[in-house]
Amino acid sequence: MTYTIPVELTTTPKAKPSHHKQAFGTVFTDHMFILDYDAGKGWHDPRVVPYQPIELDPAAKVFHYGQTVFEGLKAYLTEDQRILMFRPGKNIQRLNLSNHRLSIPALDEELVMEALKQLVLVDRDWIPSEPGTSLYIRPFVIATEPVLGVAPSLQYKFMIILSVVGSYYAEGINPVSIYVEPKYVRAVAGGVGNAKTAGNYAAGLKAQDEATLKGYSQVLWLDGVHRKYIEEVGSMNVFFKLGDTVVTPALNGSILDGVTRNSVIQLLQHWNIPVEERALSIDEIVEAHRSGLLTEAFGTGTAAVISPIGSLEWEDEQLVIGEGATGELSRRVYDAITGIQLGTAEDPFGWAIELTLS
Amino acid sequence: MTYTIPVELTTTPKAKPSHHKQAFGTVFTDHMFILDYDAGKGWHDPRVVPYQPIELDPAAKVFHYGQTVFEGLKAYLTEDQRILMFRPGKNIQRLNLSNHRLSIPALDEELVMEALKQLVLVDRDWIPSEPGTSLYIRPFVIATEPVLGVAPSLQYKFMIILSVVGSYYAEGINPVSIYVEPKYVRAVAGGVGNAKTAGNYAAGLKAQDEATLKGYSQVLWLDGVHRKYIEEVGSMNVFFKLGDTVVTPALNGSILDGVTRNSVIQLLQHWNIPVEERALSIDEIVEAHRSGLLTEAFGTGTAAVISPIGSLEWEDEQLVIGEGATGELSRRVYDAITGIQLGTAEDPFGWAIELTLS
Repeated sequence: MTYTIPVELTTTPKAKPSHHKQAFGTVFTDHMFILDYDAGKGWHDPRVVPYQPIELDPAAKVFHYGQTVFEGLKAYLTEDQRILMFRPGKNIQRLNLSNHRLSIPALDEELVMEALKQLVLVDRDWIPSEPGTSLYIRPFVIATEPVLGVAPSLQYKFMIILSVVGSYYAEGINPVSIYVEPKYVRAVAGGVGNAKTAGNYAAGLKAQDEATLKGYSQVLWLDGVHRKYIEEVGSMNVFFKLGDTVVTPALNGSILDGVTRNSVIQLLQHWNIPVEERALSIDEIVEAHRSGLLTEAFGTGTAAVISPIGSLEWEDEQLVIGEGATGELSRRVYDAITGIQLGTAEDPFGWAIELTLS
Repeated sequence: MTYTIPVELTTTPKAKPSHHKQAFGTVFTDHMFILDYDAGKGWHDPRVVPYQPIELDPAAKVFHYGQTVFEGLKAYLTEDQRILMFRPGKNIQRLNLSNHRLSIPALDEELVMEALKQLVLVDRDWIPSEPGTSLYIRPFVIATEPVLGVAPSLQYKFMIILSVVGSYYAEGINPVSIYVEPKYVRAVAGGVGNAKTAGNYAAGLKAQDEATLKGYSQVLWLDGVHRKYIEEVGSMNVFFKLGDTVVTPALNGSILDGVTRNSVIQLLQHWNIPVEERALSIDEIVEAHRSGLLTEAFGTGTAAVISPIGSLEWEDEQLVIGEGATGELSRRVYDAITGIQLGTAEDPFGWAIELTLS
């Protein structure tokens, strides 16, 4: 099925940034995509319009009950001026999984894909070409019905906005120091930790604040039941190299099924490196550190791709990993994924999707 | 300290509802209160303005990371035309506790009190006078900075809106049937369950949907760690009468410190009825039902005040409580609190605050 998405071009284009050193998610392009939902009518009126403020009733449910989901992915400009997106279908599938968990009506996945493509093509001149830069794509749904009753909204907006992002590693990959969080919990099985919804991020702000004050970059989240199994690092999935095997926490209901996480697992398998998805306790990590088995650790996510962990602080003990330097495997995974994203490396799984209108 | 809050009156007043049978939170008054926050400047520019849509950048943090808190309280019109609010200071204190948990800058509690009073007085003609009706007051904070980085916002809006609410029990108090939720979890200790923030409500929608489909009014939430200790019912606190003693779950970090909950505890103590705040398992409730010890159960919250529980469904067993009728104690607590709220009953604790400008 082909969708016709009307495009209203801006008459007042903004100046594009002359460099790409701005903070993440601060510079937005000239246009955005909107799709409305009304109960009884379904999703309707897809359109690309100039980037502009939205008007909402102060009783809109998103302000009060947080019924919202989002996604994050990137578009890249190749040396030969093609536009590539990395596994957009995975993000669109997850968007609907999140919608289901948050009682938001499902989106037409083909329409979402077409909207992504249309919007990025309209703003293609915004895609930066310097090494490591990209166009960050943020699809999101908000509940807009102006009613204070606690129940799923009867009105929504699905929107996509685009942000120009500089290189995450403009000054080279620097392993970060991590505080293993003993007090706060991000999510618990039975909750919404495996959905990409606003409340999970709000819940993590306080722990991040306190870790920052203590001098750490991020927190490592432990599970909410036993307070010992590793879940995520900041808002990323996390991997540990223990001897010859790479271990990452299994998808247990409270962990996000990250697209980069999934890609790393597939790459490791492709390289015949043993990888395990299983419960992994902080005690096991401490023990592996003592015995010399723990040689690398890294977070995975769309923004950083790979974020090497230089040290973990747990119960007043500092575990330095790989002498605080970026490990060989972390670098190999980073190079492989960014190479696929930029069209410069082998793409054995067909993950890079060239952006052309159907 | 006295605050001067500028008031801009509407030039297009809305028609007031001719009856009070509308659904909760659907009819709003003519005005609203706004206060802005900018980092470096603090909270500034308090004002009462005509009720109107707000304009936000689509990147505003509230849409993406759910950094928001709210409160709910009511104003009542007495027979002699005085306006009473019920323990507004408790709500304002809790608002700042929620702000702290969500990394939102604290509000000046005196200014918030003055804003409540000013706004309600401006819209005093909207306060309904029929039995059981009231003016629902919804203060809330939203993060408005248009930046996609996951970090506390540098800009916020604090707003208050007012909604005319009909009698919750227009057709008499009807005990409700409750589904004890085995799969979904509302919140866990270490999370944000004890803050009044949007994500807690979003997390509960799916379970409520499924319970509604099964024919139940609400869910009873069990704890996320052991999956057996009782936490809340729907978005209310919960009490059980076991023999001569009333038991309610202790404030363990994942339960909201409800104003009505606190008021019920104080009233029971005032009446020399033993009341315990402690861990309370569903197994204990099932056993108490079997032995005949469980004679009443009710939820407590601002909207309903008291919501009697007629039955609990747990592991395919239906526990009918008090023959499904409203119990004597439930009725006594309801009458005492609503009497204080309307100024018709003894107010031993000075909970009813008459609304006059300072």
